[in-house]
Amino acid sequence: MTTLVFGHKSPDTDSTGSPVIWAWYLSEVKGIPATAMLLGEPNTEAAFMLRHWDLPKPDLLGDLAPDTPVVIVDTNNPAELPATVNEARIEGIIDHHMLVGGLKTRSPIDITIRPLACTATIMHDLIGDDLARAPRGIKGAMLSCILSDTLEFRSPTTTPHDRAVAESLAADLGVAIPDLAAAMFAAKSDVSAFSDAELLRMDSKEYSVAGRELRVSVLETTAPQVVLDRKYSLMRSMEGVAAEDGADQVLLFIVDILREEATLLVPNDLVKSLAEASFGVSVSGDTVTLPGVMSRKKQILPALRF
Amino acid sequence: MTTLVFGHKSPDTDSTGSPVIWAWYLSEVKGIPATAMLLGEPNTEAAFMLRHWDLPKPDLLGDLAPDTPVVIVDTNNPAELPATVNEARIEGIIDHHMLVGGLKTRSPIDITIRPLACTATIMHDLIGDDLARAPRGIKGAMLSCILSDTLEFRSPTTTPHDRAVAESLAADLGVAIPDLAAAMFAAKSDVSAFSDAELLRMDSKEYSVAGRELRVSVLETTAPQVVLDRKYSLMRSMEGVAAEDGADQVLLFIVDILREEATLLVPNDLVKSLAEASFGVSVSGDTVTLPGVMSRKKQILPALRF
Repeated sequence: MTTLVFGHKSPDTDSTGSPVIWAWYLSEVKGIPATAMLLGEPNTEAAFMLRHWDLPKPDLLGDLAPDTPVVIVDTNNPAELPATVNEARIEGIIDHHMLVGGLKTRSPIDITIRPLACTATIMHDLIGDDLARAPRGIKGAMLSCILSDTLEFRSPTTTPHDRAVAESLAADLGVAIPDLAAAMFAAKSDVSAFSDAELLRMDSKEYSVAGRELRVSVLETTAPQVVLDRKYSLMRSMEGVAAEDGADQVLLFIVDILREEATLLVPNDLVKSLAEASFGVSVSGDTVTLPGVMSRKKQILPALRF
Repeated sequence: MTTLVFGHKSPDTDSTGSPVIWAWYLSEVKGIPATAMLLGEPNTEAAFMLRHWDLPKPDLLGDLAPDTPVVIVDTNNPAELPATVNEARIEGIIDHHMLVGGLKTRSPIDITIRPLACTATIMHDLIGDDLARAPRGIKGAMLSCILSDTLEFRSPTTTPHDRAVAESLAADLGVAIPDLAAAMFAAKSDVSAFSDAELLRMDSKEYSVAGRELRVSVLETTAPQVVLDRKYSLMRSMEGVAAEDGADQVLLFIVDILREEATLLVPNDLVKSLAEASFGVSVSGDTVTLPGVMSRKKQILPALRF
């Protein structure tokens, strides 16, 4: 039975590329038949990454049958995984997020979690010298994952090791990092095809603060005005999305990759008081700019309070 | 603030030695002040290991204050750790047990779980070339941990890698593995100083089967008759220990390291039916011998059923 390798339900570049990388490694180096899968449609940057490196798009995972061997990458959160994940045979976890608890295994397995910016960086280290055997597309996916998760080294999640790995991959591939990153970010910024509800859910994590369930959404873009032009419509859609998803409030942070700042939409007094308490700002209108804020993991979630 | 490194509440050789090894590595190689701690009195083999390699006995951990930086080794089970462990600042987890869920971290940290016989083997790999800087006592503790957890390579948990690491450490130290293992097992077999209740709790894991809470205890020994001579007294003590610990039944497996078999005490019909259902044996008296059974993790827990 082939081992299924997958990331979380909102496939960004790392959660699309890392399963492809690891399925290659298991199949071609370790001799363990493995297949990359997706738990949702890849975002526009992830789709660009697949096209750019000429990689086939992984299939969407349907029902996950009990006892299916799986490797979970880029998350350890059961809420971001199939409901039946603990009935599968989890054979490995590779991740770079805080441990939330909830995943269980039936025997000791390989689990590697590291405080690095990107799952693909961890895979680079685990694969070691065998990476020399990887085809161009696998190395290219690895590079794209790191540039995506680090926002081309601008995000405060970036470690010197993420950067060094990306630079060595770029040199090996003969790729100019600024050109590749610019093309990726342009793809990510093209959100014209998405409805407001889709935008609010595209890169989103559930997070609980003081008993309130928040859906904390981030849109990383080089063209923030395109999103801000839709702010009234986006704010009107928040209540419906929150209700459907069992959340009390949707927060939308529009991260300007080039200016290195985030703009938070402020649809009501709840978000106003949250913004003021969390980021030490004074909010007057229906948006507030947060200079230097780029990372949900490092800067937004740890700050959130009422 | 020094980082506290500790294992579980029933310190055997691995759970005593691995904190000592990792505290050395953090302090002396990584420059992070760290101190090994114990969550209970080391067993007789672990105490021998400390004396043999001239290592100071780590202090007993008292209250664990909130926000204390800690590294957890040889377990990921909150039930085997201080009640306040999730209020500490968990900075690392190194373990070789199944993931039970329940530990949470506040940010991404280093977590390494591997399906190897021994935590110290994982540390050997993580430390890498820096092990050359380790004093004799640290390498000796590493060797002792592996010989203990593998029962000198007899346990089915032993992997070729555990064995290779132990043999390379023994060659480096100029130690004859059979002599060291014999001395360790003799120390572990000297249980004369312990009360029946202490023996029943010495190397024990809580485990739930079909809604029943079991305390699954193992005594690894080269002198099983010493324990079997106390079987009536041990069986009489089981009910009180179970009641005090909130369990429905204590199981005691006496593992004969040299004959590579376990003897289960059968104090009542519940244990009789469990033994017959779990191990496919027919029980007539108040003990049953289970040929080849040496590992709670690999052979006992996965088999248990009513």
